[in-house]
Amino acid sequence: MRELHVDDRGNARMVDVGGKAVQRRTAVAQAVIAMGDDAMEALAGGALAKGDALAVARIAALQAAKRTADLIPLCHPLALDHASAEVVLDERAGTATITVTVRMDGRTGVEMEALTAASVGALAIYDMVKGIEGPAPRIADVVLLEKTVGGEQRDRGAVDHPATRDEEA
Amino acid sequence: MRELHVDDRGNARMVDVGGKAVQRRTAVAQAVIAMGDDAMEALAGGALAKGDALAVARIAALQAAKRTADLIPLCHPLALDHASAEVVLDERAGTATITVTVRMDGRTGVEMEALTAASVGALAIYDMVKGIEGPAPRIADVVLLEKTVGGEQRDRGAVDHPATRDEEA
Amino acid sequence: MRELHVDDRGNARMVDVGGKAVQRRTAVAQAVIAMGDDAMEALAGGALAKGDALAVARIAALQAAKRTADLIPLCHPLALDHASAEVVLDERAGTATITVTVRMDGRTGVEMEALTAASVGALAIYDMVKGIEGPAPRIADVVLLEKTVGGEQRDRGAVDHPATRDEEA
Amino acid sequence: MRELHVDDRGNARMVDVGGKAVQRRTAVAQAVIAMGDDAMEALAGGALAKGDALAVARIAALQAAKRTADLIPLCHPLALDHASAEVVLDERAGTATITVTVRMDGRTGVEMEALTAASVGALAIYDMVKGIEGPAPRIADVVLLEKTVGGEQRDRGAVDHPATRDEEA
Amino acid sequence: MRELHVDDRGNARMVDVGGKAVQRRTAVAQAVIAMGDDAMEALAGGALAKGDALAVARIAALQAAKRTADLIPLCHPLALDHASAEVVLDERAGTATITVTVRMDGRTGVEMEALTAASVGALAIYDMVKGIEGPAPRIADVVLLEKTVGGEQRDRGAVDHPATRDEEA
Amino acid sequence: MRELHVDDRGNARMVDVGGKAVQRRTAVAQAVIAMGDDAMEALAGGALAKGDALAVARIAALQAAKRTADLIPLCHPLALDHASAEVVLDERAGTATITVTVRMDGRTGVEMEALTAASVGALAIYDMVKGIEGPAPRIADVVLLEKTVGGEQRDRGAVDHPATRDEEA
Repeated sequence: MRELHVDDRGNARMVDVGGKAVQRRTAVAQAVIAMGDDAMEALAGGALAKGDALAVARIAALQAAKRTADLIPLCHPLALDHASAEVVLDERAGTATITVTVRMDGRTGVEMEALTAASVGALAIYDMVKGIEGPAPRIADVVLLEKTVGGEQRDRGAVDHPATRDEEA
Repeated sequence: MRELHVDDRGNARMVDVGGKAVQRRTAVAQAVIAMGDDAMEALAGGALAKGDALAVARIAALQAAKRTADLIPLCHPLALDHASAEVVLDERAGTATITVTVRMDGRTGVEMEALTAASVGALAIYDMVKGIEGPAPRIADVVLLEKTVGGEQRDRGAVDHPATRDEEA
Repeated sequence: MRELHVDDRGNARMVDVGGKAVQRRTAVAQAVIAMGDDAMEALAGGALAKGDALAVARIAALQAAKRTADLIPLCHPLALDHASAEVVLDERAGTATITVTVRMDGRTGVEMEALTAASVGALAIYDMVKGIEGPAPRIADVVLLEKTVGGEQRDRGAVDHPATRDEEA
Repeated sequence: MRELHVDDRGNARMVDVGGKAVQRRTAVAQAVIAMGDDAMEALAGGALAKGDALAVARIAALQAAKRTADLIPLCHPLALDHASAEVVLDERAGTATITVTVRMDGRTGVEMEALTAASVGALAIYDMVKGIEGPAPRIADVVLLEKTVGGEQRDRGAVDHPATRDEEA
Repeated sequence: MRELHVDDRGNARMVDVGGKAVQRRTAVAQAVIAMGDDAMEALAGGALAKGDALAVARIAALQAAKRTADLIPLCHPLALDHASAEVVLDERAGTATITVTVRMDGRTGVEMEALTAASVGALAIYDMVKGIEGPAPRIADVVLLEKTVGGEQRDRGAVDHPATRDEEA
Repeated sequence: MRELHVDDRGNARMVDVGGKAVQRRTAVAQAVIAMGDDAMEALAGGALAKGDALAVARIAALQAAKRTADLIPLCHPLALDHASAEVVLDERAGTATITVTVRMDGRTGVEMEALTAASVGALAIYDMVKGIEGPAPRIADVVLLEKTVGGEQRDRGAVDHPATRDEEA
């Protein structure tokens, strides 16, 4: 059974992963940022599109993957073997989606690294489009897409989004 | 008019804020994390509830506010005057909402600081409940609630959430 | 024999731990902070007691354990497996004692990580009580309590405290 | 009156210093590290003495002064104007004393910067002598020596050291 | 007269800039990296050319400008107003040149920020081409191109490059 | 064959080193800084010579070796086993040369760590002599001197310096 992040007196701790097996661990996470039409236009075909904007988001994501333990107090420092990031624009939906993949041979999973990277990549996009006319952007969703340990899939689907849940149920 | 984050050759840059007036600037941002029933129960009344869990999220948020320029490539380093964070649990909806307020006398806004802090606080909650039975958590929304410059309100409402937008429109 | 932290020309260096065996290594360190009556009262039963104050100290300690190599120039970067922190108040003595435990499978000990964490935790407490009426706080002692390598105890007791040493001897 | 580091619901916060006057602020702090005879001999006349050892401590202290807000969760990020560090060895007492001075024109005091710098400098010395024969070192005292705001002295003396306090009183 | 970076006992220090005037300060620095034909080809027209490679260098440079005080022990932490970076390839000469401009209203110059940014940008290019066939790259030159204080030029030309100096003179 | 730092769509990535063998890896890199006569005199026999100046450079180099992955976006976080730095002054040539050696048992080389350390050490020297009369300093060369994997030499000589290359060829 998994140890809790607080001990029986309630003190926060980094749980002991010393006894866990070194295995190949993968995580894929995604963040979706919604924005107004002018912002999407700048990113998809306008001034930002021709420049570094999406590279800024991808690189911010990779750097954040490496800084996860420095940001999330109870995360372990990890020597990641691989990280990559991709941004896809959906002009009709008005969304940019950043997907981050992280891999490592180690004793603990890398899902927080993938989620932190995707979040920071989305924040970097927010930063670049926030000054453009129209409604403010919104990071609409940050979610784990896939998790494997030693080649076996371990993800179990995320909880439904509250905005689409049937409140009557 | 606001300068773009890329110059006319497309190179990313920190835009020059040297000519802008020093004013009192405030931002309030919020992140919502949805989780399964067991995770919510642990946070609201169970093992995590009696301990440091929500403090971990609040403190991670404050620390992240201070590290925003280190995470978001085109953000300016800022000497923040104030930051606070609050977490509210909605057991029925299965959500934790973290709200962060940041204030500073300076030449550029602090909305990225508030948004980064709220995102990292939500990631810290994710980290603490991710090992609990049930569906994986989801950061359902990260949004700017309020922004003022010299006492005047400057926020303009965020774009509609894609999950609730009328796709037919 | 242990290599010195300076070479034979006096140049500082991170000594080479490449040839050392990977073993389970543990360290426990403690810092004691003494404070005035009003500060202790705020921490033990007053305004600070009901809030995040002790959590702030514990979390600052855990984060500092992970940043030791960044702070102490000749320390090696280490992938810690576990870190925990506890604060105990002694109202009669007017002291708060923070105890930090760190564990890792690796080639070099983790005592600097435990000591750095305890020191930073004590500084975080100092920060929160320094504005309260009465004499300024004092970090009275930072000391290694226990050190094991591969299960064997390796600590050897700390030097006597200068304040209690017989100066005549 | 000074604001508390927790709000009335107990949430940790960086208190708002936006309304405080910009003034010249100075702090001087000191850390004392006690060590065994062989360690002192190495530092005072032996292998470490001829090399970078004391420079390592001084530089670690200056770097730590600049990272205080990153280490102490409720400290404000500050643009320090000056920092210096000095180490004095007392061979008879078996102690090294590191004294750090910090100055800044700003809205909040710099005592945490001076105390953090002195602590980290002492930890850097501990690191360099910990492998030498004899009892383990001990950081015996970390204390604020002086604090000024706009030229006026504001320190009020530290609480007595618990080791020398009359326990019967 | 400018204070030295060591005091009269030789101790390193951050010199006190508290008394200096707040002025608009600019610095432009440049780093040149020389590489083999295959590396240049990959960067100028091949696999790297079509992707993020030059953006990685520009963004690494901007991030490094903000971290200068964390890297260079005696540099002051500064709130930069502007930073930009540009990379120019000279295929015939086999060189990539990164030029960084930094601006700030403050009490001390920003030349170290520009030089550190240019150096790190060049190292990021080195990292991306180092695995390509042919001779290893070389960072051939890092130099300050321009420095202004309050609009007045303050640079004075760099020393001649040792490789081109007349050794007989 | 070595993977590129961009994928086939041009996205930057940390290449996957998970399948590579853990081997003993060494790198030695060097940076040369040229300066005017007064600066060299201060460093070699004057005010800076008697103090911490060269120690500042060595320590900045060691710290930078540990922060390489934080500075260079596509570098992997590595647990270095050893780092050392040495500075040699050549008064006649007017140059200071900093040489850094890094070692690690791991899956990827440490040449970027050695090169980054040497660059930052040279920048630290630049910082300390930049205020002295005479022409501005220049970092004239940053180059890899040696690289071994599992004891075998892997370096292949650096490209010629552009300043000394026969342009007619």
